[in-house]
Amino acid sequence: MRTPLCEAFGIEYPIFAFTPSEHVAAAVSRAGGLGVLGCVRFNDADDLDRTLDWLDENTDGKPYGVDVVMPMKIPTEGTSIDLKAMIPEEHLTFVERTLQQLGIPPLPEDGRDGVLGWLHSVARSHVDVALKHRPVLIANALGSPPVDVIEQAHAAGVKVAALAGAAKHALSHVANGVDIIVAQGYEAGGHTGEVASMVLTPDIVDAVGPEVPVLGAGGIGSGRQIAASLALGSQGVWTGSIWLGTEEYQQLNSHAGWVPAFTKATSSDTVRTRIYTGKPARLLKSKWTEAWNEEDAPSPLPMPLQNLLVAEAHNRINAAGDPEVVSMPVGQIVGRMNEVRPVSEVVADLVAEFEATVKRLDGVAGL
Amino acid sequence: MRTPLCEAFGIEYPIFAFTPSEHVAAAVSRAGGLGVLGCVRFNDADDLDRTLDWLDENTDGKPYGVDVVMPMKIPTEGTSIDLKAMIPEEHLTFVERTLQQLGIPPLPEDGRDGVLGWLHSVARSHVDVALKHRPVLIANALGSPPVDVIEQAHAAGVKVAALAGAAKHALSHVANGVDIIVAQGYEAGGHTGEVASMVLTPDIVDAVGPEVPVLGAGGIGSGRQIAASLALGSQGVWTGSIWLGTEEYQQLNSHAGWVPAFTKATSSDTVRTRIYTGKPARLLKSKWTEAWNEEDAPSPLPMPLQNLLVAEAHNRINAAGDPEVVSMPVGQIVGRMNEVRPVSEVVADLVAEFEATVKRLDGVAGL
Repeated sequence: MRTPLCEAFGIEYPIFAFTPSEHVAAAVSRAGGLGVLGCVRFNDADDLDRTLDWLDENTDGKPYGVDVVMPMKIPTEGTSIDLKAMIPEEHLTFVERTLQQLGIPPLPEDGRDGVLGWLHSVARSHVDVALKHRPVLIANALGSPPVDVIEQAHAAGVKVAALAGAAKHALSHVANGVDIIVAQGYEAGGHTGEVASMVLTPDIVDAVGPEVPVLGAGGIGSGRQIAASLALGSQGVWTGSIWLGTEEYQQLNSHAGWVPAFTKATSSDTVRTRIYTGKPARLLKSKWTEAWNEEDAPSPLPMPLQNLLVAEAHNRINAAGDPEVVSMPVGQIVGRMNEVRPVSEVVADLVAEFEATVKRLDGVAGL
Repeated sequence: MRTPLCEAFGIEYPIFAFTPSEHVAAAVSRAGGLGVLGCVRFNDADDLDRTLDWLDENTDGKPYGVDVVMPMKIPTEGTSIDLKAMIPEEHLTFVERTLQQLGIPPLPEDGRDGVLGWLHSVARSHVDVALKHRPVLIANALGSPPVDVIEQAHAAGVKVAALAGAAKHALSHVANGVDIIVAQGYEAGGHTGEVASMVLTPDIVDAVGPEVPVLGAGGIGSGRQIAASLALGSQGVWTGSIWLGTEEYQQLNSHAGWVPAFTKATSSDTVRTRIYTGKPARLLKSKWTEAWNEEDAPSPLPMPLQNLLVAEAHNRINAAGDPEVVSMPVGQIVGRMNEVRPVSEVVADLVAEFEATVKRLDGVAGL
């Protein structure tokens, strides 16, 4: 499974693995893919710095990437305390009441920090810290990062990737200097648009032309799906959900209820909603997501307020460990996540099934 | 492009083309695919009978299929006049007011019949009439037809296909005796579920096992997409939208505004809504679909009432020919429908691009 991206990044397989876990990222890179560490969970840049030190030492010299969450237009931004003052009382009351109804206890005092990585200033510090290490790629989950960040990355010899949910957004990213487009289909976990991978990938491939590599994202969890994505014209795949089902991920995740939750879920058990960040993102369907559909639920707030509103709730939910009350971004591929496996085994299966699929297609085509 | 379905149906390519137009169906069958005539537009079984006579004579002896719309459970059903009495005044007023606001004039007296094919009794007459001709396939857009209809088809040596939007529905169809599953992805036109083709096709393929052929549907409009669907495990593709852009289709369609409407649309310009039939179906986004999102719009009625409510409105909209006010089921592939072409050219391009795609994948896999 070799495309020009393998040469460009010095990787064996064009399998890009977004993950909040440095253990997963390192294992994917060691297995021949490109592990991409999600930085949004690092409130403290020093924590990220230490984690990237660990990654530098645990990837056997193989390349890796980082993923930040950064809107192109720099928002008006105060401290997290200023922003919290903008959250309506109705929303705070709803969250607290819902958590109580779902049996989710409060946290001890020292566990109450939310996730600040959605704030622009924090995301920018992630870039500064990352560039002191040796990432080969900086990806931005919210599309083009600000142009000076792209220039900063390029000056360090680092490629920039950006997610796009429509061809016009991909064209705008390329015009801003982005090197690689992640075509994020409707079926993907996290922030998604409405166009599904089957249509979106070729839309974006044809829009940006052959000089701009496209990674297919959304619904990729098997070698058949990698073959499908490459058939659609991608030069590789961007995966995320499947790594949440690996042994290495469980080292990070303190959420005791997560494994039974994803094991039970079918591909119909996700929901695309604004309750996680304020922008539409796909989550596992749970009592928490359902509560936001009730008649008494308020409308989600815009980014970044919604995440500030629910950040502590997420920590409480994670600590409680009830499989029926999780708040986890995941794609429709969750229906296929039925056991916890080591990363190396997942990668080996992806590659083997891809090769078997291409041979099968040869038979259909009479080649 | 040969799979076991080619043998089973005596066709050259496993490309199944759903279309309300006998001209398209005949042209697809002549070109080596399987044209499948949608029967829902035939209020009068004699009209369908005459149209199938025409198809028998214009397919050069090649096979064809028919598509009916039939719920498995036989609904309580009166005449169309009885049912109309169940439509709330609020809904009738909203439709009339909206059409007036959009500048859609009334029809002359003789053009006021709606579409009755959604009624079970009418759909059943379609099956009876079809079996007097030589279809090789009866497909049902609403899943399993009633078991006695499946037995009636099998007794006549005709295979039965049913659409499914989730693996559990596919399993239920197979248990009812359905021969072929159409895995209808989220991106498809008309009735769709929420799981996209990239995930749904392998879900269904694995659920029903190797003995039951699966057709991939939703987002299929190019040879790359056919290759992707076959990579996912389908034995062929079920296509619909792309035939709405053919020369042959324009012979049926009296809607003067349709060609500019689909030519302009991108893959983001569809909407999945209950306003067409009462069940979620994907339509081209237009001033008509947007009107149903306004605050003063009522909720759509359940099937079959919603279609009775809007049937005459559809006729008025079609007659008016305003490209900005269309009511047309179409998939996200509409973004690629940019010119009107003959069916034979579309089929030839699908096949050629499929073969080129498989060769490209061979290169990636190093085969």
